[in-house]
This record gives sequence, structure tokens and C-alpha cells, in this order.
Amino acid sequence: MGRSQLVGTFHIQHVLLRQALAECLGTLILVMFGCCSVVQMVLSEGSHGTFLSVNLAFGFAVTLAILVSGQISGGHLKPPVTFTLCLLGREPWRKFPLFYFFQTLEAFLGAAVVFGMNYGAAGLEGKNATAGIFATYPAKQLTLVNGFFDQIIGTAALIVCILVIADPHNNPVPKGLESFTVGFVVLVIGLSMGFNSGYAVNPARDLGSRIFTAIAGWGGEVFIANTYWFFVPICAPFFGAVVGVLMYQLMIGYHLQGEVKEEQREEEERFKLSNITNNNDA
Amino acid sequence: MGRSQLVGTFHIQHVLLRQALAECLGTLILVMFGCCSVVQMVLSEGSHGTFLSVNLAFGFAVTLAILVSGQISGGHLKPPVTFTLCLLGREPWRKFPLFYFFQTLEAFLGAAVVFGMNYGAAGLEGKNATAGIFATYPAKQLTLVNGFFDQIIGTAALIVCILVIADPHNNPVPKGLESFTVGFVVLVIGLSMGFNSGYAVNPARDLGSRIFTAIAGWGGEVFIANTYWFFVPICAPFFGAVVGVLMYQLMIGYHLQGEVKEEQREEEERFKLSNITNNNDA
Amino acid sequence: MGRSQLVGTFHIQHVLLRQALAECLGTLILVMFGCCSVVQMVLSEGSHGTFLSVNLAFGFAVTLAILVSGQISGGHLKPPVTFTLCLLGREPWRKFPLFYFFQTLEAFLGAAVVFGMNYGAAGLEGKNATAGIFATYPAKQLTLVNGFFDQIIGTAALIVCILVIADPHNNPVPKGLESFTVGFVVLVIGLSMGFNSGYAVNPARDLGSRIFTAIAGWGGEVFIANTYWFFVPICAPFFGAVVGVLMYQLMIGYHLQGEVKEEQREEEERFKLSNITNNNDA
Amino acid sequence: MGRSQLVGTFHIQHVLLRQALAECLGTLILVMFGCCSVVQMVLSEGSHGTFLSVNLAFGFAVTLAILVSGQISGGHLKPPVTFTLCLLGREPWRKFPLFYFFQTLEAFLGAAVVFGMNYGAAGLEGKNATAGIFATYPAKQLTLVNGFFDQIIGTAALIVCILVIADPHNNPVPKGLESFTVGFVVLVIGLSMGFNSGYAVNPARDLGSRIFTAIAGWGGEVFIANTYWFFVPICAPFFGAVVGVLMYQLMIGYHLQGEVKEEQREEEERFKLSNITNNNDA
Repeated sequence: MGRSQLVGTFHIQHVLLRQALAECLGTLILVMFGCCSVVQMVLSEGSHGTFLSVNLAFGFAVTLAILVSGQISGGHLKPPVTFTLCLLGREPWRKFPLFYFFQTLEAFLGAAVVFGMNYGAAGLEGKNATAGIFATYPAKQLTLVNGFFDQIIGTAALIVCILVIADPHNNPVPKGLESFTVGFVVLVIGLSMGFNSGYAVNPARDLGSRIFTAIAGWGGEVFIANTYWFFVPICAPFFGAVVGVLMYQLMIGYHLQGEVKEEQREEEERFKLSNITNNNDA
Repeated sequence: MGRSQLVGTFHIQHVLLRQALAECLGTLILVMFGCCSVVQMVLSEGSHGTFLSVNLAFGFAVTLAILVSGQISGGHLKPPVTFTLCLLGREPWRKFPLFYFFQTLEAFLGAAVVFGMNYGAAGLEGKNATAGIFATYPAKQLTLVNGFFDQIIGTAALIVCILVIADPHNNPVPKGLESFTVGFVVLVIGLSMGFNSGYAVNPARDLGSRIFTAIAGWGGEVFIANTYWFFVPICAPFFGAVVGVLMYQLMIGYHLQGEVKEEQREEEERFKLSNITNNNDA
Repeated sequence: MGRSQLVGTFHIQHVLLRQALAECLGTLILVMFGCCSVVQMVLSEGSHGTFLSVNLAFGFAVTLAILVSGQISGGHLKPPVTFTLCLLGREPWRKFPLFYFFQTLEAFLGAAVVFGMNYGAAGLEGKNATAGIFATYPAKQLTLVNGFFDQIIGTAALIVCILVIADPHNNPVPKGLESFTVGFVVLVIGLSMGFNSGYAVNPARDLGSRIFTAIAGWGGEVFIANTYWFFVPICAPFFGAVVGVLMYQLMIGYHLQGEVKEEQREEEERFKLSNITNNNDA
Repeated sequence: MGRSQLVGTFHIQHVLLRQALAECLGTLILVMFGCCSVVQMVLSEGSHGTFLSVNLAFGFAVTLAILVSGQISGGHLKPPVTFTLCLLGREPWRKFPLFYFFQTLEAFLGAAVVFGMNYGAAGLEGKNATAGIFATYPAKQLTLVNGFFDQIIGTAALIVCILVIADPHNNPVPKGLESFTVGFVVLVIGLSMGFNSGYAVNPARDLGSRIFTAIAGWGGEVFIANTYWFFVPICAPFFGAVVGVLMYQLMIGYHLQGEVKEEQREEEERFKLSNITNNNDA
């Protein structure tokens, strides 16, 4: 009875708000685990963390974040993912700014928690050394154009893989393992594209953490640094999302849908049958 | 016939005792694998073990320990988990002290086995060098307040993730893979929060091993060291568990339960159907 | 409606062409992630990548590539796999040259993307240093005969493992996890046979990337180097595939098929029943 | 037709011989991948292999070996596993010497393949340097008694975990993932107990490879070395198996069986139902 009342008191009627809250907790988990692993690598000077352990931490943090928020909000976590799903008509566009805002807010809070946890240790020693724990900065050898191209390719690869996993006509991964697969995707992106510019591929996480560092003492420098680099992880991923959608749809997606149409008549009966079974199994 | 008699002879009638025994074996597996991997890193001076391999060993040791004890006792292994489930009313409170005692006892025995295996090699050379194999000590840069905060955050993150996996209204992981997911959670916590103070997040494992080191020759020093640090991993995780429960319930749990209520009428029939199927599948 | 028209416009009627396109995207994903991880290891001089991270990247890149292309083309990715399936009569021989051509083409394009992403950084500094990012070259201690033997053994082991996974009479892996298992196979091959000659075990990927490096500035040297080494990863894998097929079929495959025949009468009814259930579950 | 005839020609009627052949191929895969990864670590002097990569290679090699042989022979691979199953009455005792012989034989052949692949490179430079690639030798700090204890504990832990996975009354892992779980067990054992004496826990693999090194040029030295160390990995694992069986049965096994008995009447009907469903699902 007491429990029922608690549910009644705290349950939020508004669906979108509920989803935004879930995205919040998911992004918090992601940012906290991810940034902490960078802190650990930097503070221990490599003895208790390497770039591989950062990649593993970010990959599995994404998995956990999707598990946390997936049931309620779908576990987007990254604005380019919401953007992609809106583009394909699977989510209403009004979700995009709302999710973007809450993901950024929570990345800000996540950075604050990580900062608090390590207060004293993670001092203010130059923007690239410790500001780089929270937001991304390009490696030395990278020009701005290279960096833009890098973010586009990285996000496009991410979006292709996510579309494969989420396409109801494709759906190659067993139910319940999607989050693990996305985690592996992020792991592979980190292993192969992490060196150039820290593989943000996530405007919200990058911007939220960057704003926090600006307030926490690093100042406006974090925006000006590397010829206004901060603009790249905010813009490029959306171009990357468009590239990813085009590549997937033209090379895989439309053909799977087309196949379905071709075989629709024969399949229609089988499909109904399997639907019933799926409902029972789900 | 002989086999049946063996079952009859050794089968324990008391359910709680049976569960405590299973928790014992699980904790033994966890402590033995975990501590041995630390021994290996320390003794080989990094050539046959790094902090990453310790993280992997602890993560998968948790998976195996849950597999070992899960069927009988639920595979709590850590007092904060039992505490959380009692708090949520899913387990009776009388389980808490019993499990706590047996988990601590077995951590003591596990430390003894690890000590015996490496007797001679793992000599008594200073509390932080080899006593740190068995119990946790804070890193140099950590104040007591930082350490308390660190243990709270770590346990809260652990509890949020475990609640996601164990919530019957959420349940995003396929049946049988829960133990692996918890293993990944522990791996990620180790990768991101292991440097500060060894991510005990487990009062029983820490206390049991610490008492063993006190007896085995390190003496009362292990309790006094680092301004009575031993108190932090005993207390903080329970605060962390409360924080974790609040965060999960307010941001995810109550909404999922609320949703269920909203849709109860429509779902009622579907739910019954799926229940039948689940029973058959299980 | 608009969406339906898009499907109508872009859907390709020719099945083989559709499959070739899917193989293209899969190989692109594989080459891009794989080569990028090598770039990262080389450019960061080991700080942001080790041979282990390259192995992990290649392994999981194979998993993702199979997920991407599997639904349409089966996710062969490597000519020896197509060759094996044709040999066993599971695919028509006309697929072999077509897939081979498209896989090589896309490996060429993938190398181009990786080259473009790192243009400026990945300069032309000697064939083994940076040409080795794209195509494989043998280690110093390896003779040509050793290398040939190495490629045969590597491919044979790969083919045995793939046949185990793909054999309809064996089929030990749950549906949907085949791609992950193949990824683990490639990971293990990399961990155990990657040092000798870069574990190409893939004529298409190696040749396509090598042609690109020849055009991109390294010149004909890439073919002449190491006493015409380029010939080994083109030829040896097919011998390896034959060895693998023979080993699997003689030691496992024929016996499983034979068993089926033996039990055919009793099984016939059970099999029909399970077929119906499988259709419903799929 | 041709295919059917092939099956007819090569199919072996004798069940045990078929199983022995499957164990052969499994052990070959295991020894080849495992030893090759050690070769890679030794030859590259750590640049292309670390102890972690050896652990990963051995772990996943076990997974693949079980996948290869599991359907026909159950994928024992290690004599202590066969021994355990005979002890529990799940396999007939006559399988034990047969499997032992074939596993040893194939470990011999596997070592030969690895030796051939690296002929020239892996020269005869002292028993511990390169003979250690094939068979296990204790670390310097280990006494013979320590080593014996180490092998007993290691095997006992392995057997407890395997019994958990294979116990029909427990069975916590989804069907088809057993091999992966055993792979993780071997990985964890390597991460935590690999330094002492190379975690053979496998008399057949160790003896077969050791005999090969004796013949290949290292001579009788490989048996005499370290005060007849070779005897430890042949004997100790069987003691370990007995310890593991006792621990599992007394702390988990008998209680699960006992529980089943208690609830037998209520369960009987449900059990029949689930059996039918399992048959259909399998």
C-alpha cells in the first residue's frame, strides 16, 4: 500500500518528461564512467589506466547507459541518434531539442560530479591536460578540416551500425543484446578513431562538459582553443548522421524494405504468425 | 540409489542456511580470483598482470560468483546489494545480517587461501605493498572526505545498474545474462573508479580480508592506517546504496511501475498470456 | 507514401547486385575500422594503441561488418569464405568472382578513406612503416615458405571455426550470435598468428588496399617488396580453405551428417515439429 | 548424390571413435591458438603480445575448441573434466583413458604444427625460454609444494565453475553460451593464477607438448627440469578435480537436487511441460 502511494506520488504523467529524465540518468552514467576512466589514466600516469581501458570504459558505459534508459526513452544518449531517428520518421521532431537540452544538461552535471570526486587532485593545469578530461581537443597533427572529416566519418560509421541494429527489417541481433552491440560499436570507434580528436561523436556530451569546464575555472579559453575547435563536435556529427543514413539506406535499408514488398504476399501469413509468437515471447 | 542417499544425507533442510552456504562459495570464488590477480600483478611487477587484467579478473570473477550462487541465494555477494533488496522489500531484513556474516567469513577464508597459495612469495613487506593485495587502501592524493564521496558514488552507480537489471518492470537483459551484465558493471567501475581507493564497494569482502591480514602478521596497523580508512569501505557503501535506490526509483523505477498501472487494463490479458509462455520457456 | 516511393526508386531488382552492394558496405566498415586502428597505433607511437587494440578492433570490426551485410549477402567479407561455401555447394560458383571483385573494390575505397582521414599525418615514409598500415608485409624472421605455411594454417583454422558455426547439422551458437563468434575467431587469430605476417587471411582486403597504396604514391615497390610477398596473401588462403574444409568434414562434418542419417527415422517427426517452432521463433 | 556417398564413405560407425576424433580437432585448435599466442609474445619481445593477450587467446581458444567438438563429444578437452564427469556418473569410465590418449596425442601434434610454423625463428635457446612455449614450467619463486597446491586450487576452481554450468539442476547459462562461459573461466584463471606455473590445469595438453619438445631437440631435460616438475601438472589436477566436485556438491549441488526432490510433486507437471517446450526449442 505504502509502495503504491509512492508510485502515485512520484510518477510523472507527461511521457516526454519521463523520457527526458531517463535520458538524463543514462547520460549521467555514461559521462561519469567515461570521464572517470580518463581521470584515472591521467592521474595514475598510465599505471592504472591506458587508452585501451578508456575505450573499454566508454564502450561498456554506453551499454549500461542504454540499459538504464532504454526501456523508457529508447536510450538515444547522443543527439545525432535522435536526429537520425527523426530524419527517418521514427520519432517526432519535437523530441530532438528536448533530448538535446537534457543530454547537455546532464553532461554538465556529470562533469561536475567527476570534478567533485577528484577535487584537489585534478587541478587546473593547462587546458589540454585536465580540461581534456571533460571535453575533447584535437591531437597536434590534426588540422580543422581533418578534424571535421574525422567527426563526419566517425559519426557516419556509428549511425550505419546503429541503423543496422535498430532497423526492424534487418534486426540481426537477438532481443536484449542491442545495448551490448552498440557498446561494441563505440569500443571499436574508440580503438580506431579515438586518437585524432577524442571521438566525441556526441554534441551534447562534449558541449555540456565544455561549458562546465569554462565555469569551473578554465574560462572562455576552452571555446577559443585550437581555432574554435569546440564548434566541430557540435556541427560535424549531424553531417555525419546524414551521410550514415544515406549510406545505410541506399546500400542496405531500401533493399531490405524492397525485398519485403516483393515477398509480401507470401510472407503476409507467416509474418502474422510470427508476430503473435513474438508478442508472447516479448 | 547411492546417489539419492548422498542427496538425502547432505541436503540441508533450512533454506536460509542453504543460501548462506551458496553465498559462501560465491564469495570464495570472487575473493580468490580477484585477490590472486592482484598478487599476480604485484609479484610479476607488471610483466604478467596490469591494472586492466585485475579489472577484468574482478569483473568476470563477479560473473562466475553470481553463476555459482545465483540459483540458490540470488548471488548478492555484496552486503549493499542485500541491503538494497531489503530496503525495496524484495528480501526479508533477517537475511541481511546473516548474509553479511557469511560473506565476511568467506572473504576471510578466501584471503587465507590466497595467502597460503603464495606463502613465501607474498612476504610481509609493508602494509600498502602486500596488505593492499587483500584489503583496500586509498591512493596518496585522496583525502578521507574524497574517499567517502568516492565510495558513495561508486556504490550508487553499482546499485543503479543492478536495479536496472533486476527490476521486474524493466528487465532489459535476456534471462541468463544478468550475471554477465553485472560483471561488466564491476569491470567498468574498476576501469573508471579503481585508482582512488581500490573500488571495494563491498564491506564484507574488505572487512573479511582485512581481519585476515591483521591476524596473518600485519597487525592492528591495517585498521589504523590512513586515519582509520578501514571504516570508509564499511560505512560509505550503504549511503551509496540509498543514493542509488533514490536515483533509480525517482528517475526510472516509479515511472515504469506507473506506466504499468496506466496500461494495466489493456495489458492485463497480454500479461497473463506472456506469463504462461515465460513459465514454459524458463 | 513518400517513403514507399523512395523504396520503389532505389530498390535494386537484381539479387546478386544487391548482395554485392551489401558486401561492399560490410568490407568498407571492416577495412575502415581495422586500418584506422593500425593508423592510431602507428601515429600515437603506442600511447593510444597497441597490437592488442588492433586485434580487438579487427575482431569486432568483423562482427559489425557481418551484422551490416549478413541479412542480405550472408556477410562473407572474405573470398576464402565464399570459396568454401561454393566448394561445399551451399552457394553458386558465379558468386565467387563477383564477391571477390566487389570486396577488392571496397577494400581499395576503404583504404582511400583511411588515407584521406589521415592525409598529412600518414606521410610516405618507407613501405614497411606506413604502407604496412594498409596491406600486410611479413615480419623479418619470416621466410617466404614460412609465410605461405602461416597463411594456410591461419585460413584453415578460420575456415574450420566458420564451418562449425555455419554447419546446419552442428550449429552450436544461438541464432544472432554467429557474427560475434566469428569476431572472436578473428580476434584469437590476431592474438596468436598476427605477428608473423599481419594475418591477412583475406586476399580481397589485402589486394585492394595494396593497389591503393601503389597508386597513392608508394609505387610498384609494394608488389616487389619482400620477394613478391603480395602473392602469398592472394594464393595461400585458398589452399588454407581446402585444408580447413577437409579437416572439418573428415573429423566433424561427415559424422554429424551420418548421425543424422542414422537417426533419421526417429528424428523425422521431432524435426518437423522443431522446424515449425523455429519458423515461429525466427 | 555424390555428397551422400561422401558421407557414407567417411562416416565412422563407432561412436567413441567419432568422439575421440572430435576431441582431437578441439584439442588441436586449443593448442595451436594457445601456443601460437605464447610464441607471438616471446618472439615479438612484448611488442605484439603480452601476458594479457596470451590469457585472452587461451580463453577464447577454449571457447572455439568447445564449439568445434561440443556437438559430438561434449567438448571435454581436459582429462580432469572427463574424470569429473565419470566420477559423477555422467560419463562411462571407459571414455577416460580413450579421451586422455587422444587429447595427449593431439597436443603433441598441435605442438608440432606450432613448431613447424615457427621453424627457424623459435630456436633451441634454453628450456625455459622456448620450451616454455609448449609446456609449463614453474616461476622462480615457486616451490614444488606451492606448485602442487597451485594446480589443485586452479583445477578445483575450474571444476566448480564447469559443474555450475553443466549441472542440469542449476544450468544458469542460456543454451549455446556454455562454451563462452567456460572460455571466461579459463580467462579468469589465467588472469589470476597464470603467473605461478602457467596454469596448465590440463595433464593432456601439458604432457603431449612436453613429449614433443623432448623429441624435437630439448631432450630429457624437459622432464628433469625443476625437480621433476612435469609430474605436477599430470597429477595435481585430478586431486583438484576431486576437491572441486566435493566443494560444489556439498555447497550447491546436493541442495539443488534436494530442492528438486522437495518440490517434486508440484513440479512434476510443470517439468514435463517445460521438457516438451525445450525439445521443441533445442
